[in-house]
Amino acid sequence: MNRKELIYQIKEKQSFLCIGLDTDVNKIPAHLLSTEDPVFEFNKQIIDATKDLCVAYKPNIAFYESMGVNGWESLRKTLDYIPNEIFTIADAKRGDIGNTSNMYAKAFFENMNFDSVTVAPYMGEDSVKPFLEFQNKWAIVLAFTSNKGGLDFQKLEMKDGLQLFEKVLKISQDWGTDHNMMYVVGATRAKELLAIRTIIPNHFLLVPGVGVQGGSLADVAKYGMNSDCGLLINSSRGIIYAGKSTDFAEKARAEAKKIQQYMADILIEKQFKL
Amino acid sequence: MNRKELIYQIKEKQSFLCIGLDTDVNKIPAHLLSTEDPVFEFNKQIIDATKDLCVAYKPNIAFYESMGVNGWESLRKTLDYIPNEIFTIADAKRGDIGNTSNMYAKAFFENMNFDSVTVAPYMGEDSVKPFLEFQNKWAIVLAFTSNKGGLDFQKLEMKDGLQLFEKVLKISQDWGTDHNMMYVVGATRAKELLAIRTIIPNHFLLVPGVGVQGGSLADVAKYGMNSDCGLLINSSRGIIYAGKSTDFAEKARAEAKKIQQYMADILIEKQFKL
Repeated sequence: MNRKELIYQIKEKQSFLCIGLDTDVNKIPAHLLSTEDPVFEFNKQIIDATKDLCVAYKPNIAFYESMGVNGWESLRKTLDYIPNEIFTIADAKRGDIGNTSNMYAKAFFENMNFDSVTVAPYMGEDSVKPFLEFQNKWAIVLAFTSNKGGLDFQKLEMKDGLQLFEKVLKISQDWGTDHNMMYVVGATRAKELLAIRTIIPNHFLLVPGVGVQGGSLADVAKYGMNSDCGLLINSSRGIIYAGKSTDFAEKARAEAKKIQQYMADILIEKQFKL
Repeated sequence: MNRKELIYQIKEKQSFLCIGLDTDVNKIPAHLLSTEDPVFEFNKQIIDATKDLCVAYKPNIAFYESMGVNGWESLRKTLDYIPNEIFTIADAKRGDIGNTSNMYAKAFFENMNFDSVTVAPYMGEDSVKPFLEFQNKWAIVLAFTSNKGGLDFQKLEMKDGLQLFEKVLKISQDWGTDHNMMYVVGATRAKELLAIRTIIPNHFLLVPGVGVQGGSLADVAKYGMNSDCGLLINSSRGIIYAGKSTDFAEKARAEAKKIQQYMADILIEKQFKL
């Protein structure tokens, strides 16, 4: 999916919500466990219940990988089931030397037709570039993550006064464009968003950490939005595990609807519409 | 595998060679392509031909992941085939928020019984800790990688004069011990090994980049070895693709033997033996 199509979806749905499919077989409702593929069945019902409210789905690859071959089957079926007009993110945090990153890019872009993959920046340009060589595909580079450990290195101050995450933004933005790169900035880092927007005014940001992790949607929108919206705000557990029983999909929809309406209010105020 | 057992293997085999199983179906000899599982068949023959010469095997996970479900089957069969006394490294460069890293740890340590996983440090302590909570398992943290992009961020100078990879070593060494953590230092970074050894004198280092990537085994041994050897030096393509025909396994053995003999000379000189 290209940037124009993504922006169109945001305007049409009045939503910049991404739903994280962190599907854990130990957390899904018991009545699904007797189905042939409980993880896919759960995802299918979540997708059916929320696809008009979100513009992106983000399967967390670890959750599928931890189930071995069956997990990869569930992931592939899930991806095939997501409607084409919805942006898909393989949240995989990959990154390795060039020929290896190229293999990861093939795994997610060719074998599974994801629109994007999250990648770690530590190994530098040649570890990210292979993800940028696919038409209408995106690399989403970790900049400033939402977790506590995000402070261990990402906030380290450099000799020139910048912090590491700022260096990552400054240096890596030249590897691609704002049409094939996005950045991960945790919702718990809202106060740094102003500084981040001075470095990368135009890039889309994938913002996890709203909800369970404590980030504020209002702050992220206030400090992080640009004239193309420029945000995909992710919620995972808060939506998909809103209910624990046979009505889990309805409950998930209700949570997603709450967030989407909040987003619509923000977008209307900015006159961001078709 | 614990540290004592690893050191015993190094002494017994007079080798600190790790063989990288970067098995690419497009590069393996043509006569294997008609077998039921060409990737596993290739690995099996490589393992049969080299298992007395190396102390570790390192499947590069991207190569298997890029083949989808079949790739994971080949990987699992390969891992089951590797003799128990040989250390196994899932070269996966994983790392994510705590509950997600825990899923990756389960994938490699429980589902597949790897001894270790390579992990990226960018997301900090809580992204690495879950890998340290398994008995006799190891996290191998990226410190200073062998690729060109390793210079993009890892060499950045901090306010306190240290470079980022030195900060990573200093901070992360307290997350575990030299009995459950190792570090990746590329063979192309041999001249930094002296400085690295002042920070982490005791940890084992996984050293890729000998051979195709241009690093020198002699320099790595000279500057990086400690009193427990403390090195696992990896060669992938230089060994496994030494031959392209039906004699590929013999050719691979010959290459591995050359390196092992060189290592034995070094170990004998240091009187590192049983």
